[in-house]
Amino acid sequence: MANSKYEYVRLFEQPDALLPNTWIVVRIDGRGFHKFSKKYDFEKPNDRRAVDLMNAAARGVMQELHDLVLAYGVSDEFSFVFHPSTTLFERRESKLVSTIVSTFTSYYVFSWGKYFEGVDLAPPLPTFDGRAVCYPSVGNLRDYLSWRQVDCHINNLYNTTFWNLVQKGGMNTTDAEKELAGTVSADKNEILFSRFGINYNNELDVWKKGSVLFREVGLSTEPSTAVPVPVTKTAINKDAKLKKKAQVIIMHTDVIKDEFWQRRPWILSGKAGNLLT
Amino acid sequence: MANSKYEYVRLFEQPDALLPNTWIVVRIDGRGFHKFSKKYDFEKPNDRRAVDLMNAAARGVMQELHDLVLAYGVSDEFSFVFHPSTTLFERRESKLVSTIVSTFTSYYVFSWGKYFEGVDLAPPLPTFDGRAVCYPSVGNLRDYLSWRQVDCHINNLYNTTFWNLVQKGGMNTTDAEKELAGTVSADKNEILFSRFGINYNNELDVWKKGSVLFREVGLSTEPSTAVPVPVTKTAINKDAKLKKKAQVIIMHTDVIKDEFWQRRPWILSGKAGNLLT
Amino acid sequence: MANSKYEYVRLFEQPDALLPNTWIVVRIDGRGFHKFSKKYDFEKPNDRRAVDLMNAAARGVMQELHDLVLAYGVSDEFSFVFHPSTTLFERRESKLVSTIVSTFTSYYVFSWGKYFEGVDLAPPLPTFDGRAVCYPSVGNLRDYLSWRQVDCHINNLYNTTFWNLVQKGGMNTTDAEKELAGTVSADKNEILFSRFGINYNNELDVWKKGSVLFREVGLSTEPSTAVPVPVTKTAINKDAKLKKKAQVIIMHTDVIKDEFWQRRPWILSGKAGNLLT
Amino acid sequence: MANSKYEYVRLFEQPDALLPNTWIVVRIDGRGFHKFSKKYDFEKPNDRRAVDLMNAAARGVMQELHDLVLAYGVSDEFSFVFHPSTTLFERRESKLVSTIVSTFTSYYVFSWGKYFEGVDLAPPLPTFDGRAVCYPSVGNLRDYLSWRQVDCHINNLYNTTFWNLVQKGGMNTTDAEKELAGTVSADKNEILFSRFGINYNNELDVWKKGSVLFREVGLSTEPSTAVPVPVTKTAINKDAKLKKKAQVIIMHTDVIKDEFWQRRPWILSGKAGNLLT
Repeated sequence: MANSKYEYVRLFEQPDALLPNTWIVVRIDGRGFHKFSKKYDFEKPNDRRAVDLMNAAARGVMQELHDLVLAYGVSDEFSFVFHPSTTLFERRESKLVSTIVSTFTSYYVFSWGKYFEGVDLAPPLPTFDGRAVCYPSVGNLRDYLSWRQVDCHINNLYNTTFWNLVQKGGMNTTDAEKELAGTVSADKNEILFSRFGINYNNELDVWKKGSVLFREVGLSTEPSTAVPVPVTKTAINKDAKLKKKAQVIIMHTDVIKDEFWQRRPWILSGKAGNLLT
Repeated sequence: MANSKYEYVRLFEQPDALLPNTWIVVRIDGRGFHKFSKKYDFEKPNDRRAVDLMNAAARGVMQELHDLVLAYGVSDEFSFVFHPSTTLFERRESKLVSTIVSTFTSYYVFSWGKYFEGVDLAPPLPTFDGRAVCYPSVGNLRDYLSWRQVDCHINNLYNTTFWNLVQKGGMNTTDAEKELAGTVSADKNEILFSRFGINYNNELDVWKKGSVLFREVGLSTEPSTAVPVPVTKTAINKDAKLKKKAQVIIMHTDVIKDEFWQRRPWILSGKAGNLLT
Repeated sequence: MANSKYEYVRLFEQPDALLPNTWIVVRIDGRGFHKFSKKYDFEKPNDRRAVDLMNAAARGVMQELHDLVLAYGVSDEFSFVFHPSTTLFERRESKLVSTIVSTFTSYYVFSWGKYFEGVDLAPPLPTFDGRAVCYPSVGNLRDYLSWRQVDCHINNLYNTTFWNLVQKGGMNTTDAEKELAGTVSADKNEILFSRFGINYNNELDVWKKGSVLFREVGLSTEPSTAVPVPVTKTAINKDAKLKKKAQVIIMHTDVIKDEFWQRRPWILSGKAGNLLT
Repeated sequence: MANSKYEYVRLFEQPDALLPNTWIVVRIDGRGFHKFSKKYDFEKPNDRRAVDLMNAAARGVMQELHDLVLAYGVSDEFSFVFHPSTTLFERRESKLVSTIVSTFTSYYVFSWGKYFEGVDLAPPLPTFDGRAVCYPSVGNLRDYLSWRQVDCHINNLYNTTFWNLVQKGGMNTTDAEKELAGTVSADKNEILFSRFGINYNNELDVWKKGSVLFREVGLSTEPSTAVPVPVTKTAINKDAKLKKKAQVIIMHTDVIKDEFWQRRPWILSGKAGNLLT
């Protein structure tokens, strides 16, 4: 029985390879997590179990996809970064996005019980959507990550103030919202300090800075070049083994300034060297 | 603190709305399921628990995404069909694909224990990738589904014969492969019958035909038109309620011939009517 | 001398084939034709030489690209229609758009002197831009053409009234614009009739309806099907010869109602039959 | 008369903005120029009139589109380069490609008589197709241009040898082709020298190197940055005026080595400074 009569339908599949030599960022977001966090009584403004679960799922993704050089997460979102030189799945957009989203979801649901002990999941289940964006230059990539980290700061300062007004200040949510309308950062810092004795600077970095994941490896000393260098199979295998072995680190630190990047040159170079021991 | 300095990075996000008035098929595939099925000792050629789990996950997707009119699954793949009139997520490709892949994965992992009783999942976890394809005409869509169902038949006949040669015929896998090289359907039917007393026609439809999922509703009597008709909010809500209530049916039946479609005109029309009672 | 060191740059070329089995419309527009028409003193509201030159250029395009089934033009724009079955240039968008734009421009500049006798072209020269749009159904395609023809009518009624107010009514352009602000069609008809004795219905169809170009051929009797039928080389050559010989007709007529299409079934069927004699 | 009933067809127009911060190269190619050059008896291997006409058309394009920083041409092809910072036509691919193709064609046909004195054009007319490719880094862009220039050299050496074999060596084209099959550059140089007394190095640069067009301006001293700097309207106007005034230079020189670029830093910087006087 020949399948050829129908096989023409494959012609409708459109190619979707992303532009070579660009940074690929796949950002995933929790779907309806406002409702989801209410259903499972997430603590406000931040829930330790929830962030640990998000980071565990992101670590799962990093461990299964060795071409990822970095991940940055905050709240119910995570950004995964591929180096411009990656050729994973021939850089096909749907394949990259769907694989990351699926792997993240898989680890999230699988690990739920470990972080939310005694809390049973029930439909509708947690899900995530995702998309890929290409950034041509290192400057653009770092600006992307800075954008997310500034966003993290803005939202966390707002949420911290808002929930203190509600939980300790006795306001209802409508009044707390009104109280904060039109305020700038300095105002919120002042409210936290004068009314609740909280110095925002002393809040945990995990809430103020979000989470950054990367591999702890040394830098390769091979030079890079605009013309792609033919890579031997041995070199590829060595590189893959190295990345597999390398520990995935989770930090809560500034990624806007240069220091983070200068201390870890292998991340942006995309060239893993030796394992740091 | 202004975020505007970095916000320009949003300009790099490319729009990806799929062409209006086309059928959207999102097909997902298990990643590395050959290895995965070995790890968990799936029965050969077919494992009842595995297919039931796949179908449960697909049902979860159908129940959460009411705009889906049909799903067709076989082995570790599932195709989900949106009607040409859908405007879900503004038809954005990444959003449609990632949501379906994530929802499917979520239900798959969540439901694992129910179908694989006593079998614990452990990393690397089951994951799926996916992609969207647009089909402009009903003929193209039906040819797509026919293509998948013919593929189901070809693969199942092969696998059934192959595993009978191995399990009952005492061959090793290499010899069984050689035995089947170059054979046509009639040859495999003959091998099954003469050597193992198996009439392939009597095999279960779930293996021969795959699984088709749809909603059991009546057909709306409103006429359709090339010019999109403005739809009232009341009508949309009524339609959504109906689809939510409608039972998702799983059948193992022929979708190549006209009969399946003629008996369920609401599927291709995209117009759900009343609940069938 | 090997070129291979640099040849990797070809990897940056992205495929751009348009979705199969959809109508392709390439619409081109004159760039800066407001200014251009002033430079060459086009008669207002309509210039016979200009429309004849546009139509001559469109005929040139139709004669060189046999896969086009129709063209519709008005003012400084022209829409060229490919049948869903076309595989010209593998349906590559850039190739289709640029070839049509280039061919149109070439004939426009080449034919200028024939229609604008004694008027010398000088830089900046007339140029056109273009884009392709896919329409999945015949209904969508006809709605597209109706959209353009309704636009033609609206603009021509406005321009005819405007320029009569200026040329015969002695208004300056600012006052004429004010006079027409907020008017509906009936008002403009009334102004034309009561002030200038003009019955708009008696205006020439070339201004009221625009121009439609197609090949005068009979309809093939071969049935069409969703599954593409393998076409023999002989059949292709015969078809090509036919289209080459077929006369390109220019009409100024209604393309919104059914009549135009019903009388020329070969246009939408994409199946040219015999030459009409 | 409302047009709204049909206006929905605009929803089928897909956005096509090219990725920001990448070099855009629009390459155009003569369609069927092998046949075209025979029809008008182009001299072999190279025709001075033809190359001068190509360069005149390219100069027309450079003069009308001020955002172009460079053009490189050889034979019947021309590549036009936009700086990564360009926002011309919102970087829409179809608009960029079609405008360049149309402008080039317009100048080509318009200028024909000046370069091919006494030779009348007749249908089928000269036409060009085009496409856009994005290059993320300066390295990629220069590799692209090197690719084209190496190609120019390879083809010109072949053609020069081939036509000498035919025109002076008395071979027919088939024999000349055979003679050259499998030869490397050194072989062709040797044939030219030993049989025809030609030192290939003494051939004209216009044939060996192709043609590069750019504006002769100084370099702005403003620093560049990954974060786009808000540009004032005054600055934009000043820049536009400058580019308009700047002379478009045509050179036949090496663009593979660094020297060309180092002496003209304003080209890759995209920052025109003062007019060089």
